[in-house]
Amino acid sequence: MKQVAITNFGNTKFSRDDITIESSLLSATKSLFDQTPNLTQKDIDVVLVSTNENSKYLSAILSELSGITPKISHTVENLCSSGTNAIVSAYSYIASGLGNVALVVGGDRYDSPGQILEWDKSRGEYKHPIFWATLFTKSYKRKYNISTENLAIVSVKNHRNAKDNPNAYSNKTYTIDDVLNSKNLTEDLRILDCSRPCTGSSAVLLTSENFARKFSDTPVWLKGIGQKTTSASFTKNLDLTQMNSTKEAAKIAFDMSKLTSADVDVVEIHDAFSVCEPMILEDLNFAKKGEGLSLSKNMYDTFDRKINPRGGLIGTGHPLGATGVSQTVEVVQQIQGKAEKRQIENANIGLVHNMSAAATSSTVLLLKS
Amino acid sequence: MKQVAITNFGNTKFSRDDITIESSLLSATKSLFDQTPNLTQKDIDVVLVSTNENSKYLSAILSELSGITPKISHTVENLCSSGTNAIVSAYSYIASGLGNVALVVGGDRYDSPGQILEWDKSRGEYKHPIFWATLFTKSYKRKYNISTENLAIVSVKNHRNAKDNPNAYSNKTYTIDDVLNSKNLTEDLRILDCSRPCTGSSAVLLTSENFARKFSDTPVWLKGIGQKTTSASFTKNLDLTQMNSTKEAAKIAFDMSKLTSADVDVVEIHDAFSVCEPMILEDLNFAKKGEGLSLSKNMYDTFDRKINPRGGLIGTGHPLGATGVSQTVEVVQQIQGKAEKRQIENANIGLVHNMSAAATSSTVLLLKS
Repeated sequence: MKQVAITNFGNTKFSRDDITIESSLLSATKSLFDQTPNLTQKDIDVVLVSTNENSKYLSAILSELSGITPKISHTVENLCSSGTNAIVSAYSYIASGLGNVALVVGGDRYDSPGQILEWDKSRGEYKHPIFWATLFTKSYKRKYNISTENLAIVSVKNHRNAKDNPNAYSNKTYTIDDVLNSKNLTEDLRILDCSRPCTGSSAVLLTSENFARKFSDTPVWLKGIGQKTTSASFTKNLDLTQMNSTKEAAKIAFDMSKLTSADVDVVEIHDAFSVCEPMILEDLNFAKKGEGLSLSKNMYDTFDRKINPRGGLIGTGHPLGATGVSQTVEVVQQIQGKAEKRQIENANIGLVHNMSAAATSSTVLLLKS
Repeated sequence: MKQVAITNFGNTKFSRDDITIESSLLSATKSLFDQTPNLTQKDIDVVLVSTNENSKYLSAILSELSGITPKISHTVENLCSSGTNAIVSAYSYIASGLGNVALVVGGDRYDSPGQILEWDKSRGEYKHPIFWATLFTKSYKRKYNISTENLAIVSVKNHRNAKDNPNAYSNKTYTIDDVLNSKNLTEDLRILDCSRPCTGSSAVLLTSENFARKFSDTPVWLKGIGQKTTSASFTKNLDLTQMNSTKEAAKIAFDMSKLTSADVDVVEIHDAFSVCEPMILEDLNFAKKGEGLSLSKNMYDTFDRKINPRGGLIGTGHPLGATGVSQTVEVVQQIQGKAEKRQIENANIGLVHNMSAAATSSTVLLLKS
């Protein structure tokens, strides 16, 4: 198996700015080029765009705007995990020998059409993600005797982490009381429990082994890839206190990499809502069932940034097609020692967890220095 | 390099039926399963949907409707060449070792949002593909002293071929006069010079070498893959009598396969408009510049089905995301000896040419028994 590295990255600030998707994707691309002095347009064989926007041919448009004439170029869409799906696709183009250098740019706007689950007739009128999140929250709280106040720590911690992320949508910190007193959306969800729609893009450069050191002295290797789709609709998930696609994706990724959760120094988790963080920590084997929230609380108490150093989706914002790429950028920055105020000491191995639509599908990536 | 085969296929009839994209994709999937007795849902690692529809998460929806729980699953969009882009992506997932069996299903509806080039601001009001086709037609006719009557042979031939394709949109045959007397859309284009929007889906199964003979006694091997994006907008194409992305994609595919155009027994060409067939025959090296139309005419005169045996886009119809998959199905059927009335004798090597948006990007595939 050929080795594939992620060598470089680019970001835009996540915001509510009303800019076009093309401009947003181009900004992240420019940011990547600005940070990659040896890269020229003709080095790039593959351009993939991950987005939920309805615009067509965006990878060709981004290529033309950027002066790139790639061999392979298309859009990847898989709702909220479009970003990691595009990264895995780029990995496969390189590992299969079809290309050596791939640019992946993920982006969406605050009004992205991927946000409402129109496609799932089984949800009836309950198309907004807050409804599945409410069911998960209620079930998880009941099963493990967790209070709304207990759960609020996730939002408090992730907003605190986001404060040191210059690209995050939010730069405010909140107390437990702030979370509890924020607007109630459903019986179990306050607005500060939710990741917020926003506009933004992120970019990564992937290369084959032979090209990695042309662009970076510190390539980060994609050692494990796990993906699983269990369904599309919500009706197939019979246990609302765990995420089956995440468990299966994690097993595949850990097996491929020969790593375990004990080896991992930094974790990006798809905390679309507060309850997701502890559930996913459990399903990724970082905590026993029912103990995920204690781990989040411990991270908060000890000022440890290991879990969602970027601020998670709750603090950073959630422009759907950008999220998986932005999570990967954070782990790459941590492993390369470029995470500035957010830097974790001796971060050598990182995990990215990205999912779609009530965890009906998940991606887990394992990265290593 | 691991070998990857296309082993099985499925089709729907192309029509103007007003069915949902989900139903259309599912019909092609059912058709594939019906023709693949050894295939079960749990064999499938990868499900890719190629489409221009705005619906999200279609590969997960198709997976759930079909009872498949794949590892890898997402939508691929690249306008009219979405289908071959998804096939190349599936190839790379298998060749890279991430999966062994991949289902690719391409589909679109007659009202697909990919049909009008809204995204290209450089086209001003001239967003409909007939405008670029008119520029190509006028330039090609002028340069090679070709009349409207000469060019009409492409439509006559491809409609005649489509008559023997039970899945084709059109089952009528036309004379040169019929084409000349059909409705004028622009100075140089009649309606019978154009491929028509329709609803339909096609499916192929790709496998690794070890799995190929589980599903077919006659696997067809993907020996050459070439892709190139030269731009997105029309403004970059300075010579309107050739298709640069096609020339570059063909070179890559022929080099990879160590085959030449002289080796090829059957060719599927993206004849979105009449003029495309001779231009592309030249750019794929089947004819010298200016001699592509003589080759099409010769095929007509000798009842040779080598070029667009399925009926081309003009005869078969053009449901955007299905087209590249449907073209590939035809070449696979020909090589497997399953093309019934359309069967070409001793077809061992085939070529698929699929492109987007005035040939600003192209894919060329070479398949071999």
